[in-house]
Amino acid sequence: MTEAFTAVDVIRTKRDGGALSDAQIDWVVDAYTRGAVADEQMSALAMAILLRGMVANEIARWTAAMIASGERLDLTTVSRPTVDKHSTGGVGDKITLPLTPLVAACGAAVPQLSGRGLGHTGGTLDKLEAIPGFRTRLSNEEFVRQLQTTGAAICAAGEGLAPADRKLYALRDVTGTVEAIPLIASSIMSKKIAEGTSALVLDVKVGTGAFMKSADDARELARTMVELGKAHDVATVALLTDMTTPLGYAIGNGVEVAESVDVLGGGGPADVVELTLALAREMLDAAGLPDADPAAALADGRAMDSWRALVRAQGGDPDAALPTAAETEYVRADRDGYVAGADAYPLGVAAWLLGAGRARKEDPVSAAAGLVLHKRPGDQVRRGDVLYELRTDDAGRIPAALAAAGGAVVVADAAPERRPLVLERIA
Amino acid sequence: MTEAFTAVDVIRTKRDGGALSDAQIDWVVDAYTRGAVADEQMSALAMAILLRGMVANEIARWTAAMIASGERLDLTTVSRPTVDKHSTGGVGDKITLPLTPLVAACGAAVPQLSGRGLGHTGGTLDKLEAIPGFRTRLSNEEFVRQLQTTGAAICAAGEGLAPADRKLYALRDVTGTVEAIPLIASSIMSKKIAEGTSALVLDVKVGTGAFMKSADDARELARTMVELGKAHDVATVALLTDMTTPLGYAIGNGVEVAESVDVLGGGGPADVVELTLALAREMLDAAGLPDADPAAALADGRAMDSWRALVRAQGGDPDAALPTAAETEYVRADRDGYVAGADAYPLGVAAWLLGAGRARKEDPVSAAAGLVLHKRPGDQVRRGDVLYELRTDDAGRIPAALAAAGGAVVVADAAPERRPLVLERIA
Repeated sequence: MTEAFTAVDVIRTKRDGGALSDAQIDWVVDAYTRGAVADEQMSALAMAILLRGMVANEIARWTAAMIASGERLDLTTVSRPTVDKHSTGGVGDKITLPLTPLVAACGAAVPQLSGRGLGHTGGTLDKLEAIPGFRTRLSNEEFVRQLQTTGAAICAAGEGLAPADRKLYALRDVTGTVEAIPLIASSIMSKKIAEGTSALVLDVKVGTGAFMKSADDARELARTMVELGKAHDVATVALLTDMTTPLGYAIGNGVEVAESVDVLGGGGPADVVELTLALAREMLDAAGLPDADPAAALADGRAMDSWRALVRAQGGDPDAALPTAAETEYVRADRDGYVAGADAYPLGVAAWLLGAGRARKEDPVSAAAGLVLHKRPGDQVRRGDVLYELRTDDAGRIPAALAAAGGAVVVADAAPERRPLVLERIA
Repeated sequence: MTEAFTAVDVIRTKRDGGALSDAQIDWVVDAYTRGAVADEQMSALAMAILLRGMVANEIARWTAAMIASGERLDLTTVSRPTVDKHSTGGVGDKITLPLTPLVAACGAAVPQLSGRGLGHTGGTLDKLEAIPGFRTRLSNEEFVRQLQTTGAAICAAGEGLAPADRKLYALRDVTGTVEAIPLIASSIMSKKIAEGTSALVLDVKVGTGAFMKSADDARELARTMVELGKAHDVATVALLTDMTTPLGYAIGNGVEVAESVDVLGGGGPADVVELTLALAREMLDAAGLPDADPAAALADGRAMDSWRALVRAQGGDPDAALPTAAETEYVRADRDGYVAGADAYPLGVAAWLLGAGRARKEDPVSAAAGLVLHKRPGDQVRRGDVLYELRTDDAGRIPAALAAAGGAVVVADAAPERRPLVLERIA
């Protein structure tokens, strides 16, 4: 076929600081998906986008083109209002696990297409697969049916959804072009919009353990995504939340499931409960259910019932024991004092090195491996108290994990000032 | 094998504005040549280099790594001093054809590895192949032997010379990353240094018909290349020369050979003679032959003898008729006056469209096609005088060529100020 543009002309436009036209964007995304634009051309364009940026119109059109590269799910047969949540990823971020059944228990339907971990941040699908029998692959039909019957489904995005994004993401990963806000925003939003949700709440993480280290970058990403959602008639709200400290005590797969079940049972770490409730309220508001009371649903067992129904619907056994690790190593305080900080990034790296995460997409992860804090910032400690424990299937992994985590948990004379967890709301 | 670096880390270093280390450069050039760095990674790096730039040390090391990717010719067996010339390419730029035998006639040896045309600029090898029998592929042994016997050889660079550059140039061509001064300079200089010449004169073109449209860019490129030459013990000088108007009257392959033969016979267009002599004097100075008199060698037949020996040595017949075109179209002045300008770029595009050039590396070129000016800037014309003629093997090509050239030759009331041809000397 005759092509409407040449890849080199499109690349040059962006390279020289111009804005791509709608027609150029439609063409290049489509031509890349069908192989008429080569990987080496798209990676050069991605680098030009990263260094030159994109204006709002370009990002919107790029996102629309990625959506148009595949199918869109039709959730109109689901009788409840649909609302989803997306987190940009952090250390110990298990919030999707308690949040999804909780919001379903309050009357919404949550079509949650999730991802896997890469590097020091975990992934919801890896965590759920620690539950014996849990299936993370559902057909579109299964997904929609389960939303109608159970009100919640958490699974991998199907191959048909935004295939341009799948191909482009894999390319960006190996070409140093992941960190482009227009491409991050369009990648996330194309999948969420194609998934068919009516409303969306974004949890944009900021801090050492997050992809976005600065509040300015996180705010720009959040604003970009909120605008994209609105342009596609998805009611979208973003919370900027702190990710300098891991969420809760558990970092890993099975250990985070256990902590999530504690929250669903009305207990669990205060910060995980706080963020779960903040996001649940945003989701229920966005779904047109402002009178729902998620705190009550946690307290009275409805959230736990919803979780058990979700796990069973996807083939899992909510009563099965979670895998346990063969090896455990404890790290203790060498002085009295208060925990002044627990740096999310090195703790995430340590959990990853213990086997909870993967270096390459193809690698398997361990369900039992991880790092469990015994103390969190503000806690008083005495010399010899356990600060955290390392769990792994392979004792050979412990020295590197100890080295990675060394110094991440600091004991000082005084407790630190309490940091707010929710930093900003962008709507 | 275990790699010393990862491509993503090297890309990120440049993307974020840092300087690549010597070890990073050595690794990435070598790893790309052997396929351990993929095309899509190198194109992202090339775009980052284009947009972020490189400091002098990086360019020098990059050039050295490209040279080290292949073999270096050893010209020490050639008894005469060796000196080469490189032009960055222009419209009607046939200077290599008279210059190479002229400098050889004056006592130097000229190891001229040339290229082919692409787009609106012609290539020396395409021009020479208009001569019946002329072979542009010589083995390294043939090349060195001919330099010793004839004092000049003009051929394609062998596959073994700077293979990293060959691979990278092809990639840059399809990824919008040709226009990076560090990559242009290292591409040119790696081949010239690997070719083994002791001295080098660069003809850096500036103007509408040149790759570099601005004097600032041309000067930066010239300075970068002169420094690279000196760093590798190649005595290097650059002339910045005007390329707003085609050189001479002929633009094409066979037509430029004919015009070059006119110059070698002591005639030819004044501008071609002027630039040929200016470059010859620089080359002879650089070769340590400051007393040679190239003007005398043109006048007394030594240059022509040298040309005939060169053509014969490479299998060509210097007495054979050059190919003639089946179709000719004349464009005439619609008023009396003076030629105020002849814009190199559209005239080059017209010659290309007539069949003299190629759009893709694989395309053949026509030996007979081209555009021949009958008038040059400053010439007086009367209404109805021929301004230029189009020659082609295929009449179907004429309308597009007419459209491309339309307005390129301007007739006005007064003659323009004469522009200097050599704008600047950088040593």
